[in-house]
Amino acid sequence: MKDGVILERQLDKINKANDIKKVPSQMLPVLAQEIRSFMLENMAHTGGHLASNLGIVELTLALHYCFNPQKDRIVWDVGHQAYVHKILTGRKENFNTLRQLDGLSGFPKPNESQCDAFCAGHSSTSISAALGMAKARDLLGSDERIIAVIGDGSITGGLAYEGLNNAGRSNTDMIVILNDNEMSISSNVGAVSKHLRDLRTGKAYLNAKEGVHRMLDKVPYGRKIDKAIETVKDGVKYLLVSGIIFEELGFSYIGPVDGHNLDELINVFEKIKNLKGPVLVHVKTVKGKGYRFAEKLPWKYHGVGSFDLQTGTIIKKASNPSYSKVFGDTLTELASVNKKIVAISAAMISGTGLDGFQAKFPKRMFDVAIAEQHAVTFAAGLASRGFIPFFAVYSTFLQRAYDQIVHDVCLQNLHVILAIDRAGIVGSDGETHQGIFDISFIAHVPNMVFMAPSNGSELKAMIKKAVDLDCPVSIRYPRDNVPEEKIDVLPEIEVGKAEIINNGEEIAVICCGTMMDKCSDLCERLSKDGYNPMLVNARFIKPIDLDMVKTVCEKCQFIFTVEDNLKAGGFGSIFESAAYDLGIKDVTIYNFAFYDKFIEQGTRELLFKRYGLDGEGMYLKVKEILGKA
Amino acid sequence: MKDGVILERQLDKINKANDIKKVPSQMLPVLAQEIRSFMLENMAHTGGHLASNLGIVELTLALHYCFNPQKDRIVWDVGHQAYVHKILTGRKENFNTLRQLDGLSGFPKPNESQCDAFCAGHSSTSISAALGMAKARDLLGSDERIIAVIGDGSITGGLAYEGLNNAGRSNTDMIVILNDNEMSISSNVGAVSKHLRDLRTGKAYLNAKEGVHRMLDKVPYGRKIDKAIETVKDGVKYLLVSGIIFEELGFSYIGPVDGHNLDELINVFEKIKNLKGPVLVHVKTVKGKGYRFAEKLPWKYHGVGSFDLQTGTIIKKASNPSYSKVFGDTLTELASVNKKIVAISAAMISGTGLDGFQAKFPKRMFDVAIAEQHAVTFAAGLASRGFIPFFAVYSTFLQRAYDQIVHDVCLQNLHVILAIDRAGIVGSDGETHQGIFDISFIAHVPNMVFMAPSNGSELKAMIKKAVDLDCPVSIRYPRDNVPEEKIDVLPEIEVGKAEIINNGEEIAVICCGTMMDKCSDLCERLSKDGYNPMLVNARFIKPIDLDMVKTVCEKCQFIFTVEDNLKAGGFGSIFESAAYDLGIKDVTIYNFAFYDKFIEQGTRELLFKRYGLDGEGMYLKVKEILGKA
Repeated sequence: MKDGVILERQLDKINKANDIKKVPSQMLPVLAQEIRSFMLENMAHTGGHLASNLGIVELTLALHYCFNPQKDRIVWDVGHQAYVHKILTGRKENFNTLRQLDGLSGFPKPNESQCDAFCAGHSSTSISAALGMAKARDLLGSDERIIAVIGDGSITGGLAYEGLNNAGRSNTDMIVILNDNEMSISSNVGAVSKHLRDLRTGKAYLNAKEGVHRMLDKVPYGRKIDKAIETVKDGVKYLLVSGIIFEELGFSYIGPVDGHNLDELINVFEKIKNLKGPVLVHVKTVKGKGYRFAEKLPWKYHGVGSFDLQTGTIIKKASNPSYSKVFGDTLTELASVNKKIVAISAAMISGTGLDGFQAKFPKRMFDVAIAEQHAVTFAAGLASRGFIPFFAVYSTFLQRAYDQIVHDVCLQNLHVILAIDRAGIVGSDGETHQGIFDISFIAHVPNMVFMAPSNGSELKAMIKKAVDLDCPVSIRYPRDNVPEEKIDVLPEIEVGKAEIINNGEEIAVICCGTMMDKCSDLCERLSKDGYNPMLVNARFIKPIDLDMVKTVCEKCQFIFTVEDNLKAGGFGSIFESAAYDLGIKDVTIYNFAFYDKFIEQGTRELLFKRYGLDGEGMYLKVKEILGKA
Repeated sequence: MKDGVILERQLDKINKANDIKKVPSQMLPVLAQEIRSFMLENMAHTGGHLASNLGIVELTLALHYCFNPQKDRIVWDVGHQAYVHKILTGRKENFNTLRQLDGLSGFPKPNESQCDAFCAGHSSTSISAALGMAKARDLLGSDERIIAVIGDGSITGGLAYEGLNNAGRSNTDMIVILNDNEMSISSNVGAVSKHLRDLRTGKAYLNAKEGVHRMLDKVPYGRKIDKAIETVKDGVKYLLVSGIIFEELGFSYIGPVDGHNLDELINVFEKIKNLKGPVLVHVKTVKGKGYRFAEKLPWKYHGVGSFDLQTGTIIKKASNPSYSKVFGDTLTELASVNKKIVAISAAMISGTGLDGFQAKFPKRMFDVAIAEQHAVTFAAGLASRGFIPFFAVYSTFLQRAYDQIVHDVCLQNLHVILAIDRAGIVGSDGETHQGIFDISFIAHVPNMVFMAPSNGSELKAMIKKAVDLDCPVSIRYPRDNVPEEKIDVLPEIEVGKAEIINNGEEIAVICCGTMMDKCSDLCERLSKDGYNPMLVNARFIKPIDLDMVKTVCEKCQFIFTVEDNLKAGGFGSIFESAAYDLGIKDVTIYNFAFYDKFIEQGTRELLFKRYGLDGEGMYLKVKEILGKA
């Protein structure tokens, strides 16, 4: 007997979709362990959504064992927990490129694999999308199974409820798997979560394992389980009493199932395969499962950079504080003086830098769960009674609350402040997360004042300014560190006033927000060529500084606006419109921005370079335009 | 005894907030009848949301009898059912100006009365706003009561669920009144509605009246009812078994209560006033109550124009078909040939002209309830499987689905078609409903093709074109009738190509969509002055016709874009950006559009006139600009 035979890995058998079916069922737990090691070894270098993927190994294996990912449609909610699915569908070899420029995406992508049923990145979309697929199947008369996998955090989103509500009366065959790992990104809040928590601690859960077996055992193979539910109704209802919320919504509820017990998972999936109507399987998993550091502090390992595998230490370079931290610290400082300041987060307290605020003012910190719509309207309610709510939210997730910004905040001109974190390029999360839309969907809304700081001191000054105003205010800042080591002196912020940094001529560079380092680089290159470019820090997206527009257009013939937002509806187009309104002709304006395209994953610096938005790229374009003139 | 004394009306006593407390409780039913007559007589002329306001008379009277609208905060969801509230709070005298230019708003407005706690017009916002107010009260330590009144239609919206979920664990004192009138605007769908329907037909409801009395009678006056619920738990739970969904969410559930029995309502409200924590009172009302035509066909009298009081006949002028009808008829026609076409509505089948489609293709028509987010993601699911879903939706309500348009449709470049009805000015619904944002929030999204027809034939041709494309498509059209009596000849639509209607010089008028009649008027006036203006029908908002932009800017020095959208992010700004991109200088461009303001209620024509967007207004502005040049 050779060593090689002894050490043969199950994972080596997995090279394409459905290869898992070659693994003997009793070896699946071994495969699970191998996949955990494989992911850990890779992610120690690439980083990624560690804890949620460690938690979903057995669940994914069981799904792939019982269903056909090429034919059946598995819709992953949020999508950052699809790594195991990717490994099982021919993408193992590329796993070391995870979340890197041109590498494997950290989210499901139909154009990466036919096994990825639907793009995701934002939460709560899976049930709606799956219902659409199920209805399509019904109309086509085909027989694929449709499975949505949604976490207990995502199910708090209103979209998930709309989907559950619509699916519940649909009579359509579909399976919703509730992956209940006791936490969304920070910690779970709200009645539905409380309900799940009660379930976990109550008798029902303790008896659950046995109970599920008992129930399933009563079902003769091949017979419809829903019939069985009918006949043993009282017992099952009793057992599943805490699932009643889903039953009330029209689902057959099965669970809770131990999400790390492959036998139990496979047993349940095989038996529910042919159930009629909407079914909800409640699976209980442990985030970070198998890696003790991640099991202990799952939030710490939610989305990580590289880390030391042995010690769990996350590798951090010494650096200046992040914009998020400057925001959180400033707000905490201001809130000590002004009792009307309150803070709202949608399950992102830590990500948005509000941990300190929460610790100091627990009663004035509202974590509303993944519910951005509610967060904004709730803020409007608070503001209507004289409070000054700051909703700290990632740019991309704020997209969910566009209507609430228009209809509940701006229409009533309420003093709600949107602290828009992760604006611009966010890096490795890619297309679904880039914050390149916020100027386009917010700047046009009447009554809104919209600021963009170019550094940490300015962010701090703008937050102070926002408190003093009495209207809706937005402030956008990136997933980055501030350029200053220490924030000492705060600039004076006047509404609608830009800052002229260098009063040059002929060429003007108008910078929106934190593109300032790149704008400085550009100006430096131009000055080496003998130009003296005017450099302006716009500060205000809305109201734009009309005096500045006028001055710039009078002094300079070539004007370059610079932003990390889409061109359409972005700062540059606002500048152009202002120029026309002022009756300015005879200038050349060019917008450095993202042109009509979703932007892929990659580091901020690599992406700015790729899209010609770094100092060098902009310099070449400026020279080209000057050359043509 | 004088006749005058005999005929004294209770309504005459009602001149300001809290005057209702002067009416003896046994006379409240008389007041209810007087208010019904008063509303009917007025609305026969002004039109308005008849059925829902007739249904909520007793409920509103009881609220005002038991609470103080000046201190307590009553938050009306959707808001179109607040007429009785307005009559009871000093606005009776202005009721004949309802929904007219500068008249009484058809929705609650804090700047109309201090008794209006929060603006509404869109659905499902009340619970979130009320929770914000309740938290504000808790922080301030004041003691006002917070009451959200939400319909069974609005509660299907995801925002309402986010609010319920958050309020359910809040331990905050607030009252949610579920006004269950068995219908949202068209008819209610979804599991929650089914649940409410079961309740109405089941034993629980039949016993309810008695049950509520029994339950309340067990509560010694002044004692906390929640205690009582605890002690009689089994009985109450049994009685209220169908309210368990709300109990599960953390609310104390009371109901159902007969919403037309003032004694019962007042009894319940008085006793729950001091309940701790979130309470949900389920009130059963009949839409259209008291006016037999409206009781029979409540959807017909949901939002009416003027009607004959005696016969119920709605007064209609003979006219060309509406854009909605042309849309619905065209889609039905196309769907006969193309089996992949399906239609989606969010509780607006009739309003969007899809009744015929529903009748002919019931399996391909999906009414998803008030759930615009779900509608779009559901459409994406269908499109991902090769179907061609048309989501017909009012412009203002589509605001709810911005993120789903970006993240679920456009990111995956799915062939979903948004049929955007009620784009532009909608008239008497006012600020909350004007469809003046859609170009600004949709045109910037990558992959989207966006069309605007200038008449019915073009709408028809564009719908056909949309079917043939293979990407996300939007088509916007107004709440208006098409200019043609009959649609005979369809124009050829080429993606990204405008239509040059008059090939003039010096002055160009670029029309976006159905502003064409006003643009023609403008051109006629200019031609009388000896000009030969170029008139262009843009057809495409995105991609804008760059050849057209170039031609226009070469031939004309004065360019006027015309649209019924906000200027910011609107068609005009897209035109300006395109001109800069083409390196065009030396032209004057002016945008006719709405400038950075929410637009009030009034007829379309009056509002266009007020904002200088009718032929005459634009003519004067054009002359002013020409005069300055």
